[in-house]
Amino acid sequence: MILDKSLIEQHNEKQSALHQKKLDTLTAVLSDEGHSVNAILDKIAAFQVAIPSWALGTGGTRFGRFAGGGEPRSLEEKIEDVGLLHAINQSSGAISLHIPWDIPQNAKAIQQLAASFELKFDAVNSNTFQDQQNQDLSYKYGSLSHTDKGVRDQAIAHNIEVIKHGVDLGSKALTIWLSDGTDFPGQQNFRRAFQRTLDSFQQIYAALPDEWKVFVEYKPYEPHFYSTVVADWGSSLLFCQKLGEKALGLVDLGHHLPNTNIEQIVSRFLMEGKLGGFHFNDSKYGDDDLTVGSIKPYQLFLIFNELVEGMQSAEVNNPELSWMIDASHNIKDPLEDLLQSVEAIKMAYAQALIIDRKALEKAQAENDVTQAQEILQNAYRTDVRPLLAQARLQAGAALHPVSFYRESNIREELVKQRGAKAFATGL
Amino acid sequence: MILDKSLIEQHNEKQSALHQKKLDTLTAVLSDEGHSVNAILDKIAAFQVAIPSWALGTGGTRFGRFAGGGEPRSLEEKIEDVGLLHAINQSSGAISLHIPWDIPQNAKAIQQLAASFELKFDAVNSNTFQDQQNQDLSYKYGSLSHTDKGVRDQAIAHNIEVIKHGVDLGSKALTIWLSDGTDFPGQQNFRRAFQRTLDSFQQIYAALPDEWKVFVEYKPYEPHFYSTVVADWGSSLLFCQKLGEKALGLVDLGHHLPNTNIEQIVSRFLMEGKLGGFHFNDSKYGDDDLTVGSIKPYQLFLIFNELVEGMQSAEVNNPELSWMIDASHNIKDPLEDLLQSVEAIKMAYAQALIIDRKALEKAQAENDVTQAQEILQNAYRTDVRPLLAQARLQAGAALHPVSFYRESNIREELVKQRGAKAFATGL
Amino acid sequence: MILDKSLIEQHNEKQSALHQKKLDTLTAVLSDEGHSVNAILDKIAAFQVAIPSWALGTGGTRFGRFAGGGEPRSLEEKIEDVGLLHAINQSSGAISLHIPWDIPQNAKAIQQLAASFELKFDAVNSNTFQDQQNQDLSYKYGSLSHTDKGVRDQAIAHNIEVIKHGVDLGSKALTIWLSDGTDFPGQQNFRRAFQRTLDSFQQIYAALPDEWKVFVEYKPYEPHFYSTVVADWGSSLLFCQKLGEKALGLVDLGHHLPNTNIEQIVSRFLMEGKLGGFHFNDSKYGDDDLTVGSIKPYQLFLIFNELVEGMQSAEVNNPELSWMIDASHNIKDPLEDLLQSVEAIKMAYAQALIIDRKALEKAQAENDVTQAQEILQNAYRTDVRPLLAQARLQAGAALHPVSFYRESNIREELVKQRGAKAFATGL
Amino acid sequence: MILDKSLIEQHNEKQSALHQKKLDTLTAVLSDEGHSVNAILDKIAAFQVAIPSWALGTGGTRFGRFAGGGEPRSLEEKIEDVGLLHAINQSSGAISLHIPWDIPQNAKAIQQLAASFELKFDAVNSNTFQDQQNQDLSYKYGSLSHTDKGVRDQAIAHNIEVIKHGVDLGSKALTIWLSDGTDFPGQQNFRRAFQRTLDSFQQIYAALPDEWKVFVEYKPYEPHFYSTVVADWGSSLLFCQKLGEKALGLVDLGHHLPNTNIEQIVSRFLMEGKLGGFHFNDSKYGDDDLTVGSIKPYQLFLIFNELVEGMQSAEVNNPELSWMIDASHNIKDPLEDLLQSVEAIKMAYAQALIIDRKALEKAQAENDVTQAQEILQNAYRTDVRPLLAQARLQAGAALHPVSFYRESNIREELVKQRGAKAFATGL
Repeated sequence: MILDKSLIEQHNEKQSALHQKKLDTLTAVLSDEGHSVNAILDKIAAFQVAIPSWALGTGGTRFGRFAGGGEPRSLEEKIEDVGLLHAINQSSGAISLHIPWDIPQNAKAIQQLAASFELKFDAVNSNTFQDQQNQDLSYKYGSLSHTDKGVRDQAIAHNIEVIKHGVDLGSKALTIWLSDGTDFPGQQNFRRAFQRTLDSFQQIYAALPDEWKVFVEYKPYEPHFYSTVVADWGSSLLFCQKLGEKALGLVDLGHHLPNTNIEQIVSRFLMEGKLGGFHFNDSKYGDDDLTVGSIKPYQLFLIFNELVEGMQSAEVNNPELSWMIDASHNIKDPLEDLLQSVEAIKMAYAQALIIDRKALEKAQAENDVTQAQEILQNAYRTDVRPLLAQARLQAGAALHPVSFYRESNIREELVKQRGAKAFATGL
Repeated sequence: MILDKSLIEQHNEKQSALHQKKLDTLTAVLSDEGHSVNAILDKIAAFQVAIPSWALGTGGTRFGRFAGGGEPRSLEEKIEDVGLLHAINQSSGAISLHIPWDIPQNAKAIQQLAASFELKFDAVNSNTFQDQQNQDLSYKYGSLSHTDKGVRDQAIAHNIEVIKHGVDLGSKALTIWLSDGTDFPGQQNFRRAFQRTLDSFQQIYAALPDEWKVFVEYKPYEPHFYSTVVADWGSSLLFCQKLGEKALGLVDLGHHLPNTNIEQIVSRFLMEGKLGGFHFNDSKYGDDDLTVGSIKPYQLFLIFNELVEGMQSAEVNNPELSWMIDASHNIKDPLEDLLQSVEAIKMAYAQALIIDRKALEKAQAENDVTQAQEILQNAYRTDVRPLLAQARLQAGAALHPVSFYRESNIREELVKQRGAKAFATGL
Repeated sequence: MILDKSLIEQHNEKQSALHQKKLDTLTAVLSDEGHSVNAILDKIAAFQVAIPSWALGTGGTRFGRFAGGGEPRSLEEKIEDVGLLHAINQSSGAISLHIPWDIPQNAKAIQQLAASFELKFDAVNSNTFQDQQNQDLSYKYGSLSHTDKGVRDQAIAHNIEVIKHGVDLGSKALTIWLSDGTDFPGQQNFRRAFQRTLDSFQQIYAALPDEWKVFVEYKPYEPHFYSTVVADWGSSLLFCQKLGEKALGLVDLGHHLPNTNIEQIVSRFLMEGKLGGFHFNDSKYGDDDLTVGSIKPYQLFLIFNELVEGMQSAEVNNPELSWMIDASHNIKDPLEDLLQSVEAIKMAYAQALIIDRKALEKAQAENDVTQAQEILQNAYRTDVRPLLAQARLQAGAALHPVSFYRESNIREELVKQRGAKAFATGL
Repeated sequence: MILDKSLIEQHNEKQSALHQKKLDTLTAVLSDEGHSVNAILDKIAAFQVAIPSWALGTGGTRFGRFAGGGEPRSLEEKIEDVGLLHAINQSSGAISLHIPWDIPQNAKAIQQLAASFELKFDAVNSNTFQDQQNQDLSYKYGSLSHTDKGVRDQAIAHNIEVIKHGVDLGSKALTIWLSDGTDFPGQQNFRRAFQRTLDSFQQIYAALPDEWKVFVEYKPYEPHFYSTVVADWGSSLLFCQKLGEKALGLVDLGHHLPNTNIEQIVSRFLMEGKLGGFHFNDSKYGDDDLTVGSIKPYQLFLIFNELVEGMQSAEVNNPELSWMIDASHNIKDPLEDLLQSVEAIKMAYAQALIIDRKALEKAQAENDVTQAQEILQNAYRTDVRPLLAQARLQAGAALHPVSFYRESNIREELVKQRGAKAFATGL
């Protein structure tokens, strides 16, 4: 399905008066505060979030999955869905593939299809947390950390194959979420599991093309419930230090123990020049994989506060970052969920952009704690939605993405084309 | 120190143009959405938050306390401080006393002093979590739950004395935060501790005047680290059910285990007609007692969503609620902290007032999950600060309380009057 | 597969000398401490733990499932597997069925089969957390709490059908784990969801035969990640109070927020005469469903301390309890996992039986905290495995169940009979 | 008070028969399993735990402190108390001092006093988390991380002074628990706070004598409730990497977020040769500072499993470790609490010593998860108390330390000497 751009124009037309009024007031306020609204709009417009191919279908839990209709049945249809999102919000200009769920049969054709939607290929993702049919050896007891060299070799070979697919498509990074871990005390020797994993990582690292990066994601538990090999940012950093400059940490917001101060972790990675990117989502209990910004929007803002500060500071020397969503849409329409998620991410980014950083530095230097909070919260309390809407308007996207999606009956159309029982490959 | 009201007028004068502009835009938007802005302003203006007498001085931790200057040295000075706050924001029109730290020597004079600042006396608080000098028996191993009847009787008598002080001042409620609990498995029999506590509560309950209520606060840990007698909302409700209709649960936002869904607890209490009131604060780890709204502002909004819905619904039959702050200002000027806290509470309240409840009910009935989030977050993302400012303006309070407090050099004045080493009684 | 009992005799023969020596020393110590070892042995022997039918196959997570071999393919084979366990440990004399996974085609034949293994039917379990093929209405947005009466009626009818199957088999209780909840703030009205659920529960309650009970299980999250209708013990108790005396709470050890004091919850339920039973498992992070006793064995002991105290105390008036395992065996042989779990439960029970209760009561009365810990931990530190082994020996079971299971090549035999790719119905 | 050693002999005499019987059985079992009981006894005897000088008095919380009687009033009396403990259990042969609470007026005399009790001086502890009277600059907003160079210099000078006191007494290590952190988002720039702290650490590091080490303790929160500079093991390791080989991480068991897998952290530190030592205690909620082994004894065992494995493995190259208790005795007699804590530590150590490591390695290599658990838990379930008792017996200590302490009326004697209202310096 290809979006008729005139629909967007009609949608925007109807709402433009009210939008303009809100924007004018906000522009006046921000200008008073010394901001260049145009510069902010440019930054917002340039900010693109990659969509993972596995998030276009309905997700589930171990207790079941309640499928929706019109899910993409192939890699082509997944690209088409991201193309729809990008046409609506002009903020989702990349797709992050998962191998083996998305092996392109004809890389060139796939690249052309993506290009027709103005999409790039972000990091490619390997999978050694499941057994695939016809796989020689099982990952039941681990993959890159396995005690059996044969299993490790198989997992290494898979990762190298993923890199090759990525090269064919124009990706520049490999994301490794290594689920390896244990369910019971004593099951493995922690140190040796680390060393075996390091050895595996090194072989994969050696296969990285120039200009490529590898992202080492961490997670404290699930699918294993006692320990994981890359459990926390400290372990991720340790692996990256030992691997070399192409290896960078990846932060998934749901991969932390209760009450973790994630924003300080972000700062630590940036300080060390070792932050690779993000998997955005939101959560209340564990790796709940909910819509970004639906549970802890202030935390998201605080994370972007670190990111904006770090990216602007001469004290920080970190490679460019990869922004990806990693969520599971169990009860919402996946495309609506993704539109909401991208909006939440950009809202936090915009709020972080309007923090009065000079004043904040002064308050910090003077230990003026009350004032530091006033400054941060003044940005957070500001309703920046008109800025996001304006950036979309200028880019030819919809003023209100979710409303537009609904008005245009996009899901109904997809169901018509693909059927009510279409089932996305993946989880 | 008594505030010169003309200072407020001057402060407001300077900011009124920008304020009016923001208010106009917001009024237009809200009116478009079908809201009566005046009705909302009335509700905001009427909303008063009680200030606890112990929060006017610097707080501390077990590792120490870093005192500030100009702290109130007496009950009279504490009332004066709340009077200052109320003059600045017209939203802090009550004080919640703690016995024995605030025993009035002359109740009539204290009442008159409070009245001169237009302050009422909210719930009175008993204290059996510390030993006082010259106290016969120790609370080291508990008070109302103690195995020794003598200790229990002493603690009961103290609570009854607190009621009497409250009667003298015009309070209508007793708040019991019972810290009793254990530090080690096996230390006490849980059931018997509950039964002894119930017996003690019943004797206190019997001493309540007509029209009085008793609030049963719950807390899972601290100062005891294995169990507490009133550990959670379930235990609080159980006590209240057994005591009778004057007994109501009290929710302190910091008194929950990690990841608790507090807003659902609020709904449960309301459903049972058993919610007495709130102790507002914020926290990241435990009972951190931070400035309200400084860590989890969205959670606060969700709680007010429940409160507003419950107070408006004909399905709910709950007594009027008591709103109190209970925080510890370890590194901020206590008065600034309280101004920020009251502001955060009223912001969440205002946001909850502008939720489109009809649309929300429809979305809920239809399981339109995306839309339900859009509706809630539309309210939350709205910058309601102009409403709060306008309500203050109309009531003769300051447009920007913290700025006004600083411009007016109030702390400097208090230090001058009371000294740099004045030390508030209490924690 | 039916176990040849002479294998057990041979196994026991080999180990009897060492066993006897350990038992003699332990008997001497316990007798010195005033215990009747024979009375303890009788209690241990009588303690039976029900095995859930869904725990006989390999479990999985949302990320996948790594099947083992020889899994039971039918209800008959599940009963056979529990029969094997019971023959080995004489402690697993009941099975807990799940509908619709285990609908008996011929109840009489199934009863006879179970009886041939000396098995009873414990509580039956309903399932409205998944959609079944050919089901009219979906549970995607809830079942007993659904906003649509049609869905609620369907879920009620299912529960009543489950009761009928239970009646046919001789069960006496229905366990309802209601997964209903929400993933996002605002998705539902908490109070109305409670009221609708209560109405549904009442209709199911009305269908309970005399002598039947219904267990209301609680769980804070998963498969929903913002709220659940029966979130905690307080909600479970509230439902049970409103339903009547046949309604009782059910505690699943994995269904609590971090750091919850579960043993006090057990005490509260017992105090109110409202404890129905247990789902045993262990966990480090959430509802990890690990082998009982593998992560927090001391907590399990403390829970049994409450249970033994409550069951012995004249102050408690609670119906007889149902003991069930509810675990997920993702990487262990399910039968080995269950043998370890039953052993861990009975170990905690035995340790709780040898607590010097008189001395403990005295220490509690005197607030002798050090001594209370000494008493509890003296029981916990005692190696009670010889008692369990002796109880098994006397009952004709194996001295060391796991070793026996392995020596006898039971899994290999099951794989031979059922195939390496047999797949148990269920999760 | 100096202990009359004949009292110990009398105590041991009375219990020796029963002890011998238990020991004989255990010896037989362990010998059968291939252990050298004498070698184990030697290791147990050699294991010494340092007592912190601040743990000899009653502890408290921010809500108060309930003092006991006979607390040590001076450094001399603190040493005397540790001397008593060591005489009773021959396992507490070191004391860890805190500056400025324990500044020795005459180092030589203090050393001689300690030597008379056969005590050594373990790590010395600095304190910049409180302001001392007559201190120039305040630590209200931090010390080694403070934005003001003057404050940092003062804190650096204090640490260097602590080293000097340590040198005078024969200590070989400095423990820095840096409480610096923030209470509110935005209060400080995380990166700059790290950099300033690193700079301060480097100056202190430069002042370390040869053969000295500095331990960098980490803690996620309290007394600050939003962030801390050395928040987690990753931050501690990062500091240590940047400082040099004398800098090592220190693990306090209570300084972790909920559900943290501490034993894997221990393994990571050992792997990197960067583990300095331990602060033992136990906790259910936060830094509860309870008696070691009173809440999570299995976790303690799992930690010792890592320690024993790491200390025995040729793959690990880590300096010798420092073992210290850091607890707060709020409601128990401090000396009883310490006797229980030392016992719990040594119990976990003894259990870890009897793990069948060869069999465990084999099970790990084969992914025999069930068997790995059997092996670990066989050691854990073994009642090793006779080994500890025997090690004490051979060293001239008491068979049952707590009983002996009580029989000998030691507290009563101390109260007689020091008074019922003696108050230990410190927290």
